[in-house]
Amino acid sequence: MDRISSLRALLRTLSADVLYLTHYAHVRWACGFTGSYGVLIVRADAAHFVTDGRYRTQAGEEVRDASVHVIRPTQRNAPEYVEAEGLLKAVRRVAYASDRLTVSSLKMLQERFPDVEWTGESGLLNGLMARKSPDELERIRAAQALTGEVFDTLKEWIRPGRTEKEIAAEIVAGHLRRGADRMSFDPIVASGTHSALPHAQPTDRPVQSGDVLLLDFGCFLDGYASDMTRTVAVGPPDPLVPEIYDLVLSAQECALRHARAGMPAKEVDALARDVIREGGYEEAFSHSLGHGVGLEIHEWPRLSRLVDDVLPDGCVVSIEPGIYLPGRFGIRIEDVVCLREDGVYNLTGVSREWTVL
Amino acid sequence: MDRISSLRALLRTLSADVLYLTHYAHVRWACGFTGSYGVLIVRADAAHFVTDGRYRTQAGEEVRDASVHVIRPTQRNAPEYVEAEGLLKAVRRVAYASDRLTVSSLKMLQERFPDVEWTGESGLLNGLMARKSPDELERIRAAQALTGEVFDTLKEWIRPGRTEKEIAAEIVAGHLRRGADRMSFDPIVASGTHSALPHAQPTDRPVQSGDVLLLDFGCFLDGYASDMTRTVAVGPPDPLVPEIYDLVLSAQECALRHARAGMPAKEVDALARDVIREGGYEEAFSHSLGHGVGLEIHEWPRLSRLVDDVLPDGCVVSIEPGIYLPGRFGIRIEDVVCLREDGVYNLTGVSREWTVL
Repeated sequence: MDRISSLRALLRTLSADVLYLTHYAHVRWACGFTGSYGVLIVRADAAHFVTDGRYRTQAGEEVRDASVHVIRPTQRNAPEYVEAEGLLKAVRRVAYASDRLTVSSLKMLQERFPDVEWTGESGLLNGLMARKSPDELERIRAAQALTGEVFDTLKEWIRPGRTEKEIAAEIVAGHLRRGADRMSFDPIVASGTHSALPHAQPTDRPVQSGDVLLLDFGCFLDGYASDMTRTVAVGPPDPLVPEIYDLVLSAQECALRHARAGMPAKEVDALARDVIREGGYEEAFSHSLGHGVGLEIHEWPRLSRLVDDVLPDGCVVSIEPGIYLPGRFGIRIEDVVCLREDGVYNLTGVSREWTVL
Repeated sequence: MDRISSLRALLRTLSADVLYLTHYAHVRWACGFTGSYGVLIVRADAAHFVTDGRYRTQAGEEVRDASVHVIRPTQRNAPEYVEAEGLLKAVRRVAYASDRLTVSSLKMLQERFPDVEWTGESGLLNGLMARKSPDELERIRAAQALTGEVFDTLKEWIRPGRTEKEIAAEIVAGHLRRGADRMSFDPIVASGTHSALPHAQPTDRPVQSGDVLLLDFGCFLDGYASDMTRTVAVGPPDPLVPEIYDLVLSAQECALRHARAGMPAKEVDALARDVIREGGYEEAFSHSLGHGVGLEIHEWPRLSRLVDDVLPDGCVVSIEPGIYLPGRFGIRIEDVVCLREDGVYNLTGVSREWTVL
């Protein structure tokens, strides 16, 4: 089923006449447009994509399964065009993504289209977007491969004296030189005791011999995100470090071996968390096990103790257990994988062996 | 007047009992917190900042003029804590930034606090945040200086054969190596005919001798944004290029000479646009003259033909006229400046002389 047809099925489920999509990732997923401004209107009998003059050529080339409209120079925004052209004429009920639209934008739409009932749904496209197509899996694998290449060259380049910020700059430049669209988040480069902070920001601290070095980074390539964490030592560290590394790795491997589509998210989280608990470090694993990855770096589903959602076949998630010992060091290992009913397909090709640079 | 006191004055103007701020830039401006998760509650008699456990230490160090609260591990989010601690007890009317809160988030707040009247305001802090303090001006100047340094080294490094993507990677690495927090937007590196697209994305096209090369980039440093565009030639270009460059430069200089705080935004836009019209290229200047710059890369006010807003004393804006000739080339020159009642203070130190590399 093509994606617009899936959206029409969703329309029927929601008893709505129209889906009104404005969020970048929703629009890109549904019709292929990669620019920053556009509205996609899906009705039972038609699909319209409205953008502005900057994107005339690009929209013509990219948009599939919807007719392309360009607002006139005298019109301020897409809703003005939509009204003038009657694209919501005789429509009663419109569904929109309430977690992706601001209160101001909704108010503006309600004022312009007073006869329409605007029905907000949180997570409107979560279920559809989570089931990745073979083409999407290939793009995520390619993005992970690029990130892996950068990590491999980095291992040769890192040495005591390089600062966290210098390493972060090299990570970013390495991705962009290899053709990444952009980074999917600011790299985490956390050395020594900084590695014990799960979301440390790079500082001017030079890496020192004996340091733990936690590296967490990813890019967008062809629209799809990569995300990977590796933790290494720069010269021989405290003997506790490889012990904790082994425990984190065992926790990750337990999840990689036993996770399946069809399981509740909290059960997959528990696969890794139970191993860390048995190792005596439950309190030190202070975040959830993972998150969805795709057109956005953080997508549904979340692999968390608090989440009952059942994981759909073909979803792509990070598996990233960690142990953080404040004032000492932290270890995290993260791969991005695809969950199928018969098991885990790892999209990350980089070795997870304990490494002393 | 400190910022919390300014917010209390705003409370009285809005006849509200509480300001409820969640947007990153609002929170940072009001109380100094630089992390990614926090809620600031400003009442006439108190100010409370609520964040999660990740930010306990950081909030304690950074937050001024508000008491710091950390949600408990069993609580899912700040509103749950706010309710449990009664921070909105006996409050009737709460004002929030409706262009910075999603419909879902508002709904969640309304359900948790059913006795509160939630009053959305678009552009809630625009007027306050636009008037930059001396400290803010100094930070923006420092960010512009860093961006200028990168441009200077780039001029030596660019030569025919380097691709747009390679140049973009070098721009990003140059900023991060010099200590930038991150880029303020993806660099625009547009060579040859690509320069005629105001928002071109870097491609694998190698720069060729005779090319126009349009470079538009900026970073965040210490929280504040820089933004600069320079257009150069790589080897002697078409003779029309320096002519058009002169016209764009004259347009920019007219705005730099005559713009003042207290003028309507559209009048400042007209200062530059009139020069381009008289030069015969009105249709080729297809965007507005500029935008506010500060804790965000695009802030209020916008310098546009469509905007009547009067420009406040001390606001910081970009002045960036451009002429785009499709299929041929484009020229844009952009400085970031502070508008005072007695004139323009340029925060950008890089020469705007016509340059052939």
